[in-house]
Amino acid sequence: MTTNKADILISNGVVLTMSDKHSVIDNGAIAISGEKITAVGSLSDFSSWQISETIDAEGGIIMPGLINSHTHAAMTCFRGLADDLPLITWLNEHIFPAESKLDYDKVYRGTLLACAEMILSGTTCFCDMYLFEDAVAQAAKDAGTRAVVGEVLYDFDSPNYGSIDKGFEYTEKLIAKWEKDPLITIAVEPHSPYLCAPELLKKALSITQAHDIPLVIHVSETKNEVSDIKERYGFTPVGFLADLGVLAPNLLACHCVVLTDQDISLLKEFDVKVAHNPESNMKLASGIAPVPELIKAGVCVGIGTDGCASNNNLDLFAEMDTTAKLHKVSTLDPTVLDSETVLKMSTIDAARSLGLSEQTGSIEPGKFADIIIIDTNKPHLVPMYNPISHVVYAARGSDVSTSIINGKVVMKDRNLLTMDIEKVMDDVRKIGEEMKNHKEEP
Amino acid sequence: MTTNKADILISNGVVLTMSDKHSVIDNGAIAISGEKITAVGSLSDFSSWQISETIDAEGGIIMPGLINSHTHAAMTCFRGLADDLPLITWLNEHIFPAESKLDYDKVYRGTLLACAEMILSGTTCFCDMYLFEDAVAQAAKDAGTRAVVGEVLYDFDSPNYGSIDKGFEYTEKLIAKWEKDPLITIAVEPHSPYLCAPELLKKALSITQAHDIPLVIHVSETKNEVSDIKERYGFTPVGFLADLGVLAPNLLACHCVVLTDQDISLLKEFDVKVAHNPESNMKLASGIAPVPELIKAGVCVGIGTDGCASNNNLDLFAEMDTTAKLHKVSTLDPTVLDSETVLKMSTIDAARSLGLSEQTGSIEPGKFADIIIIDTNKPHLVPMYNPISHVVYAARGSDVSTSIINGKVVMKDRNLLTMDIEKVMDDVRKIGEEMKNHKEEP
Repeated sequence: MTTNKADILISNGVVLTMSDKHSVIDNGAIAISGEKITAVGSLSDFSSWQISETIDAEGGIIMPGLINSHTHAAMTCFRGLADDLPLITWLNEHIFPAESKLDYDKVYRGTLLACAEMILSGTTCFCDMYLFEDAVAQAAKDAGTRAVVGEVLYDFDSPNYGSIDKGFEYTEKLIAKWEKDPLITIAVEPHSPYLCAPELLKKALSITQAHDIPLVIHVSETKNEVSDIKERYGFTPVGFLADLGVLAPNLLACHCVVLTDQDISLLKEFDVKVAHNPESNMKLASGIAPVPELIKAGVCVGIGTDGCASNNNLDLFAEMDTTAKLHKVSTLDPTVLDSETVLKMSTIDAARSLGLSEQTGSIEPGKFADIIIIDTNKPHLVPMYNPISHVVYAARGSDVSTSIINGKVVMKDRNLLTMDIEKVMDDVRKIGEEMKNHKEEP
Repeated sequence: MTTNKADILISNGVVLTMSDKHSVIDNGAIAISGEKITAVGSLSDFSSWQISETIDAEGGIIMPGLINSHTHAAMTCFRGLADDLPLITWLNEHIFPAESKLDYDKVYRGTLLACAEMILSGTTCFCDMYLFEDAVAQAAKDAGTRAVVGEVLYDFDSPNYGSIDKGFEYTEKLIAKWEKDPLITIAVEPHSPYLCAPELLKKALSITQAHDIPLVIHVSETKNEVSDIKERYGFTPVGFLADLGVLAPNLLACHCVVLTDQDISLLKEFDVKVAHNPESNMKLASGIAPVPELIKAGVCVGIGTDGCASNNNLDLFAEMDTTAKLHKVSTLDPTVLDSETVLKMSTIDAARSLGLSEQTGSIEPGKFADIIIIDTNKPHLVPMYNPISHVVYAARGSDVSTSIINGKVVMKDRNLLTMDIEKVMDDVRKIGEEMKNHKEEP
């Protein structure tokens, strides 16, 4: 008779597996060996196991780490720099001038802060689009968090790589450098149909196909974008991408606020994935994405925070709550986007949206151990009739007590174990001072 | 030369006074003696003062406690009992049967839990409408929190007082019992135009006028309500109240989701106050109140959470964030309800909505010391360009480190000083078990 062994057993909590079966296990337990989950079941199943370390969930909720489908992590540097402004003023007078001062070091530090914030609020994987993405990959790796990262590509010169040819070279180098990393996936990330010529978009797709990696793009974020693309190409942005042959199962279309019925059919037909960013879309007054219609059509939708200059935090618990409520009021139907649907959008469906559903997004043997524990011994989580309702409607990121990524405990009892958080905060405060001083100069 | 003295000096933070002048004081300080604020200024102003206790805000934000303009506190007992259902199913099959089992003791325990949650998330005053309100007043007093409480009145029999005549007697007794209490204000609270006959409403108003206290009512929460009242009386709900002579400056109209332009003019003309409950209105799919129009017309609007069965928490920080974003997207204008406007809605304007603006809602000498400190040494609050933006868009209730109510420290370093929180949570868990067992019975 062989004895089963595990490095870590997480026990004494209700497990939300987010897998197709056994979605809720009362008094459940999860065995982890190395990077992977090896067994999931009732605590009694593990009585004869040999366990190196037991993590006691103390009656809380044990669930897959949340996945942020779309963000610009280093924009932590610009959190609250400017708010409540017309989009063009916000971008041209505040965000673009600030971004022109970014470099590898600032992006690294800003991303490290973002990783800290995300780990502390239960996010164990994020998909990033920004400048100096080698710094983003490095910061994510140093923080111990899973990430899909890609350098933003557009027709004009970038403060990082210069012209677009160099942008593709930079992207190819990222792929070569990071392709063996267990935590980092490189994506190719053209900004949008309005900032990228057709040739750029087609080349981006071909690189992703050669390497079997995600293609990430902003699409149909605003009415103005749709009018602009229609005028330029005679199609909606989604129609334009379809005509170009760029719609594909590995395409993650971020925002998708302004869609026609035909756009939705196209997204479904080509199995394109969508990243929904409700709080950013609300704050920038872009509009409300037709998420219930997308899901009804069978499109896979994940949830993202977008950059925290337009949010202004990276807390996916708040984003889930907003998602569930926003679509109820916009459709005047309280049954749409129930809590289970929304929780899937932030876990298994988000993993699928990033091509990572074999690796993460649910608690199943064979997947990487990306797991969080929610401390429910708090006034705002009492009583508990339904743990899924609590996660979506009552909990906050600050209720996460423990975060495990790739089998490694990266946060325990609210303490980050992979970085010196005081230094990380000080570093970004200094960047903030620099931005502020620059802004105040005549 | 006399030496100035204070019981408490709160120092070392940026002070958001929310008064008409000096709205932001960097490195500010606040002197408290007994129940009251006695001085507000720069820390240097207090160098010669004799101070009994100094509370160090450690570089954080010092601001008035938030005021929850509308809730049903004891509904903590039903948090997450049922979600994502049509309104009528939710009410008739879940909430009403559960409420029929309430008594003084359950309401007391449920309210105590609500007070714990509110104090921990920076709310220092709330306006309540529910059953067994003597228990609510007692729980608020025991928790050390300020509250406006009133027994819900309607045409049919109440599980508490029986017939409406007894309801008015109960209300008169509440007024007599609590009128001298420094923390508790009694209000008269007819449920709504659709559950209260004209005579009930007129009598309710006359009692408030005799005692100079608030009149609180639900108005125009849903389209169905508006159709119903139009059919019954030939007016919109606001028009009906105007016709009855019940619109008055001491009237707090909760919800006001479905309003005509004429309704808005009437609310302004009679200086009626409004409690906006965005998250509940979203979750129940009631609609979006025309808050920017109300404010433009000059109507005073506070923010409430509503009961946490339709929210599902009492965190006003989340409610502020949602308020600011929801109206931007619903008007497609990113400049409406800027962060300062929204912060006023949860502090000084909320105080005004409850007739308490001489007592609380801002940090000014002579007002009661209802003050909170936000710990900004956290990844999601770094860097800080604008503290008001942080409070509305980035902070969460869990960032409140200290809460002071009526000059007394009720929460310090996240520890509640006025109750045994483990016992309070256990008590409500037991109520939850009872509700669940009953629900599962055939």
